[in-house]
Amino acid sequence: MTAPRHIKLFLFPAAAGAHVAGWRHPAARSNLLDFEADRRTAAIAEAAGFDALFFADRLSFPVRDNATAERSAGSAVLEPLTLLAALSAVTRQIGLVATASTSYHEPYHVARSFASLDHLSHGRAGWNMVTSLTDAEAANFGREQHFEHSARYGRAEEFVDVVRALWDSVDDNAFIRDKSSGRYVDLNQVHALNHRGEHFSVRGPLNVPRPPQGHPLLVQAGSSEEGLRLAARVADVVFTTQQELQPAQAFYQALKERVVANGRAADQQLLMPGLSAVVGRTRQEAQDKLQALNELIDIDVAVAFLSALSGGTDLSSYPLDGPLPDLTLTNGNRSKQALFLRQAREHNLSIRQLAIQVAGSGGHRVVTGTAEDIADDLQRWFEGGAADGFNFKPLYLDDNLSEFADQVLPILRDRGLFKHEYADGTLREKLGLARPANRFAEGGAA
Amino acid sequence: MTAPRHIKLFLFPAAAGAHVAGWRHPAARSNLLDFEADRRTAAIAEAAGFDALFFADRLSFPVRDNATAERSAGSAVLEPLTLLAALSAVTRQIGLVATASTSYHEPYHVARSFASLDHLSHGRAGWNMVTSLTDAEAANFGREQHFEHSARYGRAEEFVDVVRALWDSVDDNAFIRDKSSGRYVDLNQVHALNHRGEHFSVRGPLNVPRPPQGHPLLVQAGSSEEGLRLAARVADVVFTTQQELQPAQAFYQALKERVVANGRAADQQLLMPGLSAVVGRTRQEAQDKLQALNELIDIDVAVAFLSALSGGTDLSSYPLDGPLPDLTLTNGNRSKQALFLRQAREHNLSIRQLAIQVAGSGGHRVVTGTAEDIADDLQRWFEGGAADGFNFKPLYLDDNLSEFADQVLPILRDRGLFKHEYADGTLREKLGLARPANRFAEGGAA
Repeated sequence: MTAPRHIKLFLFPAAAGAHVAGWRHPAARSNLLDFEADRRTAAIAEAAGFDALFFADRLSFPVRDNATAERSAGSAVLEPLTLLAALSAVTRQIGLVATASTSYHEPYHVARSFASLDHLSHGRAGWNMVTSLTDAEAANFGREQHFEHSARYGRAEEFVDVVRALWDSVDDNAFIRDKSSGRYVDLNQVHALNHRGEHFSVRGPLNVPRPPQGHPLLVQAGSSEEGLRLAARVADVVFTTQQELQPAQAFYQALKERVVANGRAADQQLLMPGLSAVVGRTRQEAQDKLQALNELIDIDVAVAFLSALSGGTDLSSYPLDGPLPDLTLTNGNRSKQALFLRQAREHNLSIRQLAIQVAGSGGHRVVTGTAEDIADDLQRWFEGGAADGFNFKPLYLDDNLSEFADQVLPILRDRGLFKHEYADGTLREKLGLARPANRFAEGGAA
Repeated sequence: MTAPRHIKLFLFPAAAGAHVAGWRHPAARSNLLDFEADRRTAAIAEAAGFDALFFADRLSFPVRDNATAERSAGSAVLEPLTLLAALSAVTRQIGLVATASTSYHEPYHVARSFASLDHLSHGRAGWNMVTSLTDAEAANFGREQHFEHSARYGRAEEFVDVVRALWDSVDDNAFIRDKSSGRYVDLNQVHALNHRGEHFSVRGPLNVPRPPQGHPLLVQAGSSEEGLRLAARVADVVFTTQQELQPAQAFYQALKERVVANGRAADQQLLMPGLSAVVGRTRQEAQDKLQALNELIDIDVAVAFLSALSGGTDLSSYPLDGPLPDLTLTNGNRSKQALFLRQAREHNLSIRQLAIQVAGSGGHRVVTGTAEDIADDLQRWFEGGAADGFNFKPLYLDDNLSEFADQVLPILRDRGLFKHEYADGTLREKLGLARPANRFAEGGAA
């Protein structure tokens, strides 16, 4: 008999929240440089039993588009690995997932930083692999333009393979530390890579011993064809944008098949759509709370936000209450762009309506209703084969998180769908994911 | 009237201690992956009033030379920025100085990580700029060989200028966070760099606001001509290897003159030689304690250690009790190599004697004696114009540190040479160093 399957929950604080004007809520946090506030948010999430904290990243200050940059809170935030390392010292159970780009980092640094975080946190680290999105990021790293979509995934595939090999390069038991003989390390358990590939040459071995999890949790978030190929091959967790149950079920089914086609067990990858929620004592109260938040949105900001997410076409030159024009998918976040376009067409949304919806959610699904309603919705997705869990994005911090934690999670617990306490062990063990074998374990010396 | 001048003290834990066999001491820490032990060491240092923790770094696993790698504890350690970020959450006063290489990092990442650590720690971050030493490091970053000595300093000069400009790129008061108007950031206070240099093209601005210190503390450690040129121009603290008072005074005097020649006040740079100490109730007891530690050294390890530090010539093929052969200075750590050679010649040291001395100290000065003797020595260097303070390297952890803290520091306090408590404010303020002005403060928009 296996343990009951539980909904997995990550917390994605998304700077000051997923809602572009969430920081303006009277109770909301607006200062993103206040570590005490980060510590409080982490404590709320850990007390509630969230499996992990998930921090996104971007490698530029988005000055491109003044309306959004001036009026939204996410333009400048702490570097996520640094922040999560600090949070590792003041948390005990919750996972720590940071984003790092395969386009503008070096595999040796990434392998080393995440291995270090995994040691510091006794096996709670995770890496959200991204390929970065914009020319603005490229320009901070000596390039005129961002890598083209398929080229950056070629680089990503090689990058992650080098990182995983580096994590394996010092065996778990290589460190002997025998004071009497003076032998500290067994070099037969330390392995060079001598990797020479198209994008990287890395000799290895890594100078941090193998992480407690073997490999820190690997998270992938792009839903393009190239992104899904990488995800099916290596990701432990896939973060996705899904707005409706049926397409989500189809996506879930298709991805699990690809995971199996890669020789992996279907339950060894967790699919977690993004989700926000507004809880009310009544459905009307929940709607009113969301409406009040949306009224804090400056429509120019929302349109600029949508323009940026749609690939840069300036939508402010089109009639606000008219339909979305035909857009060409660009080199940015392709799968999200396609989703917006489909939504707008299917529901006949005006630019204004879509802009408010997207800017008020960061693009992810927002559920409103009573706590029972929201628990029902999560259960439907979870049991209906659309999700193994959810990456929860508070619309603002911390009340929108606390309300979900205090009101929705107890219902899910009563229904046997959410854990009562953390399981022992590393993040992988808590999530039911196997520890990767070491490719060098039978091999020779460096 | 100015405040009394105090001896500054950094703590340089150097993996398991400066002594190559220190980890074998019965009371010594030998596991370098134990965050609770790091936290204890940091707590001892903070309780004792050390100004900062100083962590070195290397970007490879030193498999080159098996004897040293197998028998010394420093081959694999946690990445220092990650570790210091975690320590920032469990300390309140002590500075946090991490090493990062200008040869194998990108300025945008370095600027961002240290700015983040400075925010997390309320102004306690410092960056020890190094250019890296070995081909083994180069091979982990796609290069056959390490950058040649002067080329890597050319890169370092440009690197640090870009990093400082990035730290200035978002003004201190750029973040308005006005909930009522919805204005979050004043883009007039956010500045692009548009830097295009020989080594880097970086548009900026940084996506982390200006650090509390303006610029995190800049530490420089190379004593080559190129290193000193960089130090005189930009370093707030210079870490140096000095074995004897007179050369140390000459070095101090010369460097202060270069600082002044760069238009800086002499007291705005602190010169801190490395120092280890063994305290005894008598001089003989201190000598015996050091001797007992040295007896834990395997002579093969010591010779391999000396060979590596001397630039890679295999000294094991020479008679152990004979003189050091003529060596050519290599592309590695030039200033330290020259110092060893001079020491060996001046004192007629055999290979064995020099090897034990170097491996038993990591190359820095070791003072032995009663607590009074050691306090006298530090006072002589400090008042004699040879040092503004010391980078203290325990020979092993933690007893060798605690003995110094408990026995020597109270004497220095009684003599008015060491502070009784931390001053308020950032690390710069505690050290009496001015906050850098922002080059863009009068400038225009991005």
